[in-house]
Amino acid sequence: MSATTARITAVDTYDVRFPTSRELDGSDAMNPDPDYSAAYVVLRTSDGGHEGHGFTFTIGRGNDVQVAAIDALRPHVVGRPVDELCADPGSLYHDLIGDSQLRWLGPEKGVMHMAIGAVVNAVWDLAAKQQGKPLWQLLADADPEWLVSQIDFRYIADALTPAEALELLRRGKQGADERAATLLQRGYPAYTTSPGWLGYDDEKLTRLARAAVSDGFRQIKLKVGADLADDIRRCRAARAAVGPDIRMAIDANQRWNVAEAVEWTKALAEFAPYWIEEPTSPDDVLGHATIRRQVSPVKVATGEHVQNRIVFKQLLQAGAIDVLQLDSARVGGVNENLAILLLAAKFGVPVCPHAGGVGLCELVQHLSMFDFVALTGTTEDRVIEFVDHLHEHFLDPVVITDGHYRAPTLPGFSAAMHQTSLDTYQYPHGSFWAEELAQKEATA
Amino acid sequence: MSATTARITAVDTYDVRFPTSRELDGSDAMNPDPDYSAAYVVLRTSDGGHEGHGFTFTIGRGNDVQVAAIDALRPHVVGRPVDELCADPGSLYHDLIGDSQLRWLGPEKGVMHMAIGAVVNAVWDLAAKQQGKPLWQLLADADPEWLVSQIDFRYIADALTPAEALELLRRGKQGADERAATLLQRGYPAYTTSPGWLGYDDEKLTRLARAAVSDGFRQIKLKVGADLADDIRRCRAARAAVGPDIRMAIDANQRWNVAEAVEWTKALAEFAPYWIEEPTSPDDVLGHATIRRQVSPVKVATGEHVQNRIVFKQLLQAGAIDVLQLDSARVGGVNENLAILLLAAKFGVPVCPHAGGVGLCELVQHLSMFDFVALTGTTEDRVIEFVDHLHEHFLDPVVITDGHYRAPTLPGFSAAMHQTSLDTYQYPHGSFWAEELAQKEATA
Repeated sequence: MSATTARITAVDTYDVRFPTSRELDGSDAMNPDPDYSAAYVVLRTSDGGHEGHGFTFTIGRGNDVQVAAIDALRPHVVGRPVDELCADPGSLYHDLIGDSQLRWLGPEKGVMHMAIGAVVNAVWDLAAKQQGKPLWQLLADADPEWLVSQIDFRYIADALTPAEALELLRRGKQGADERAATLLQRGYPAYTTSPGWLGYDDEKLTRLARAAVSDGFRQIKLKVGADLADDIRRCRAARAAVGPDIRMAIDANQRWNVAEAVEWTKALAEFAPYWIEEPTSPDDVLGHATIRRQVSPVKVATGEHVQNRIVFKQLLQAGAIDVLQLDSARVGGVNENLAILLLAAKFGVPVCPHAGGVGLCELVQHLSMFDFVALTGTTEDRVIEFVDHLHEHFLDPVVITDGHYRAPTLPGFSAAMHQTSLDTYQYPHGSFWAEELAQKEATA
Repeated sequence: MSATTARITAVDTYDVRFPTSRELDGSDAMNPDPDYSAAYVVLRTSDGGHEGHGFTFTIGRGNDVQVAAIDALRPHVVGRPVDELCADPGSLYHDLIGDSQLRWLGPEKGVMHMAIGAVVNAVWDLAAKQQGKPLWQLLADADPEWLVSQIDFRYIADALTPAEALELLRRGKQGADERAATLLQRGYPAYTTSPGWLGYDDEKLTRLARAAVSDGFRQIKLKVGADLADDIRRCRAARAAVGPDIRMAIDANQRWNVAEAVEWTKALAEFAPYWIEEPTSPDDVLGHATIRRQVSPVKVATGEHVQNRIVFKQLLQAGAIDVLQLDSARVGGVNENLAILLLAAKFGVPVCPHAGGVGLCELVQHLSMFDFVALTGTTEDRVIEFVDHLHEHFLDPVVITDGHYRAPTLPGFSAAMHQTSLDTYQYPHGSFWAEELAQKEATA
């Protein structure tokens, strides 16, 4: 290797928190007052060229623990040659999930796994910038053999073999160019959760639901699960606002036991909810299967808190879900999400990703767009969640027109935040929090 | 409340690491070089009375992340009245797993959940000291109604209701006094993993296996899963050493896919292994069920990495395990382990706890002893793992005689380490590591 080989020289981390709890944006039955936050990471290189950006999304407290977890991965990353890393992000992913000592803290779940996802996603951001392509296009253009090499089949080979993955990806290549053109022209369908936060009153709910329809969305989502009488009233108001032809999903954010989930969903069935999301614990594969059998025709959806490909595999094997809601920053990054997209494709279950939070829309659109262009080839019954918060902090924010995500065209994974946002909202020393905490102290 | 009410004044944390990787103690197919470690916590009180000690066990790197996670819980603990806390540890447990922002980092799994377990266990240590009883006896003496109040039935009520739990505990009371006397006299059966670490050669394996039998153990365990030819040779040697009447468990530490697990276990069946432990991912409920159907009569065991009661519930519902290996410090402390013991009792599956590591034997013996005295009332097919490492660092170390754990009689949860051990092995500034790291720097 020549002396001028560029290497990763730094893994810089930022604890970034936005004070969203003030407006009850993001409020639901389990999360009454989230402060949307990001444990943010920047990979810097010795040639001072492109940077790789990534993050874990959290809702406030504990964001510092997430930063500590990313910091613990630093020795695996610093010193790696940039070209090798970008040519094979899977090699780093493999090393990170395979670190035997860190693995003890999971394995492949929770804080440590989300930290791995942040770093792995930052590598994909860097790789896409190096190739001069938005990530969806990098993935769509990639050789199927190479994509298969990016996946860890351990613990999923009983449901998806490398040969089956290759076959799915080869089939996905057929007609990919036409679909890429369609995507660039029409975008990818979105649905919106903005009307339905639990902290909003009925007037705001109705107004935002109507606005969503006139903005071109064909699906909205309501938070439910705190109080049944309230939910009946809110669902009635929302259904009246949007009419019978708009899909209305409901989301309990894990509030219920299995029996409660069945009862509560049935009690809301008259408002024709399209899916019930997170009816119970994300860990409860068998519970979801039981619920699904009993609430049909309401569909069952989950995924934003599903910890890894192994639990998704079982949700599919058990026939526990109708809709798979992967999250860009919960699992081990793009590599693991490739496995999850392929599992969903094999089982014929549509992927409708979780988004919102901080930057989750920006990231996950790339995965769905790849899925459309070069894997399943369809957007039927597929929508990406959209929440209209905090996009202004991103260099390449999502653009929604007529209820569709526009396809990003800038190189990268759309992960980078403005430096001013990082400086303002770093906790606790960024200018916003320094002032906030000083005021709190003064009035205490 | 009077002005003299004692309160929790400090939650002190320690990053303690032992250099076990030097001797390959603890080596297995997934963990070639662990440095057994503890993220250790001490609750201090305003009256300077008893302290509560607890910890999370890790195997080295990432122990600092675990400490950061415990630190994040501090605001929930400091200021609590000691008497209230000890009268109802479940109230703190409930608040910790219910913190909506921290919950996002799990929920109830991985780093954040293990931190909760450490703090909750420290409260039980304090409560047992306040009552002047070893923890097993506190639990055995407790009212069934109160024990039920200590359990969170969310996400498990489809498998175990509060009424069923109460019934099991009431039945467990019958004959408890006699069984307590038996326990104090005979102890609780142990098995030993000390002979079978993967890094040991055949001579050492044979010698230690023979020693285990002459020390009174009726079961040993061997690590397997790295190389089949090696495993066949080692199993043959161990079986020859112990004879046909000693149970010999094998442990793959999650090394295999489902199909590999079946094949490999069948290839070792001629040596009559009693159970195959952790044949695949601890997250794979359905995978374990498939393996169990195919490797019978070899039993299937797992649990040391099972993240919470929800996954244990499913392992039982799916008929996926013959042996449930709970761990004292992986889940949310005593409260969640009460739920797991009750689930196992309801499904009639014996609990053979995971132990070893740092202090896991010290903690978990209390849970099995409670189970014997006041829940299932039997030790049939039940053994606690024993590994003869690092007990010298504990104030009230386990005592093994004739293959049995002696029942602890000192008040508390046996969790406290010697202050000199904490001082010597704190990372990186304790005297051992300071010297070690200085030497490394000097030779670098």
